[in-house]
Amino acid sequence: MKEALSPQNIRNNIRHGKHDGNTSGYANGFVQGNIVILPKEWANDFLLFCQRNPKPCPLIGMSSEPGDFLLTEMGQDVDIRSDVPQYRIFKDGLLTEEVKDITTYWRDDLVTFVLGCSFSFEEPLIADGIEIRNITENKNVPMYKTNIACKSAGRFSGNMVVSMRPMVVADVIRAIQICTRFPSVHGAPVHFGAPEEIGIENINVTDFGDSVTIKPGEIPVFWACGVTPQVALEQAKPPFCITHSPGCMLVTDIPNSKLSIM
Amino acid sequence: MKEALSPQNIRNNIRHGKHDGNTSGYANGFVQGNIVILPKEWANDFLLFCQRNPKPCPLIGMSSEPGDFLLTEMGQDVDIRSDVPQYRIFKDGLLTEEVKDITTYWRDDLVTFVLGCSFSFEEPLIADGIEIRNITENKNVPMYKTNIACKSAGRFSGNMVVSMRPMVVADVIRAIQICTRFPSVHGAPVHFGAPEEIGIENINVTDFGDSVTIKPGEIPVFWACGVTPQVALEQAKPPFCITHSPGCMLVTDIPNSKLSIM
Repeated sequence: MKEALSPQNIRNNIRHGKHDGNTSGYANGFVQGNIVILPKEWANDFLLFCQRNPKPCPLIGMSSEPGDFLLTEMGQDVDIRSDVPQYRIFKDGLLTEEVKDITTYWRDDLVTFVLGCSFSFEEPLIADGIEIRNITENKNVPMYKTNIACKSAGRFSGNMVVSMRPMVVADVIRAIQICTRFPSVHGAPVHFGAPEEIGIENINVTDFGDSVTIKPGEIPVFWACGVTPQVALEQAKPPFCITHSPGCMLVTDIPNSKLSIM
Repeated sequence: MKEALSPQNIRNNIRHGKHDGNTSGYANGFVQGNIVILPKEWANDFLLFCQRNPKPCPLIGMSSEPGDFLLTEMGQDVDIRSDVPQYRIFKDGLLTEEVKDITTYWRDDLVTFVLGCSFSFEEPLIADGIEIRNITENKNVPMYKTNIACKSAGRFSGNMVVSMRPMVVADVIRAIQICTRFPSVHGAPVHFGAPEEIGIENINVTDFGDSVTIKPGEIPVFWACGVTPQVALEQAKPPFCITHSPGCMLVTDIPNSKLSIM
């Protein structure tokens, strides 16, 4: 049912308070985006941070000019103030509130960034017959802080956050091939195998999301994750910032296949 | 020096007895081919075997009709009777002779098959900064019989032979990406990590070629190998068959880049 809803239907439900949870599994085939909204004076640094770290921060859209809340390139009638199910408000790097609409918080100097999300690559993996454990187990994908340093940009810096999906070797090879076609939704994995090589001490203890079962013979595979900019934001401590709540994404009208480079 | 020789120069030297060793490292940038020559009545089975097992048996050329010894699609003036440095003659599946010219063995019913070779993908890996251990150590690439069954075709069957190159995780990911672009020279690896999962008992004991050093932190990566059809031929035991000697390939005029699918 939820898979078959159109992006427009879902956004309309969200806007009118009929949908306030996560968007995983909704509108199959369409790109969903991570959202970061910053004051203009912080936007250039963040744009540079994305440009220098395209694997964790793949920029797929941004507002035309400061204060613009309509993101027409992302879909018909998209209003970033109301079309995300849940938002997080940060002040000086601290999460202060979670809200379902940011119209009353909107300011003329805010710039919106939309970043690609792993939902877009999980779909072709599943279509190819690869099991995605977090989906099978109905959990949020496990995410970990690593020791992989992002390239700094102005006031933004920090280590990469990765998501993890366990699979057998043959599926790892196939997943690398498939994800390589989708550089704007994190692309190929950044690591597989020994978690300690990238600074993860205990694979069963996640920093974000849920832990999932790793079966005998399976290898943990790690992708750059869109939570990375949230960690960089917490460290940079801009006076004001808005993001989506994890899993509660902007559903766009862009078909996933449009993000494939071949 | 040898890298800079043109394919035509090398074939001319070979034809006139001035080069009779292996062709590794010669004519950088040009495709080299594994050779299988069979009587017409065995050719269809072998063609089907290649079609069903494209990773170990990637067919890049064949003679236009039985008895035809000129392979013009492979290069200027290519004569398969004289342009390979060393050949192996098999009778009833048994190696009977190694010779430097097969003109006196030629028959009107012989069909020639040219199969892609790993030399073509080692080159873009090296260009990308990945160390190829067998080249660094000046050895023949290590090859192993596996328990991976090929798909049978008529009288041909057998298990896959793989070549192995050790590398660190980041290079494995990159090598999978690069080799995926070259499906007609074995394409992406078929396995990495635990050798026992594909029936290799001792990674230091090769079935063909030499063993190479695997350093701490490196993972053995396995590619489908062009020696696979030789094993299938030994099992099928056609009354007559000719192949190249390992490492002594047909040097073609085809640029490696022509085999890249993107």
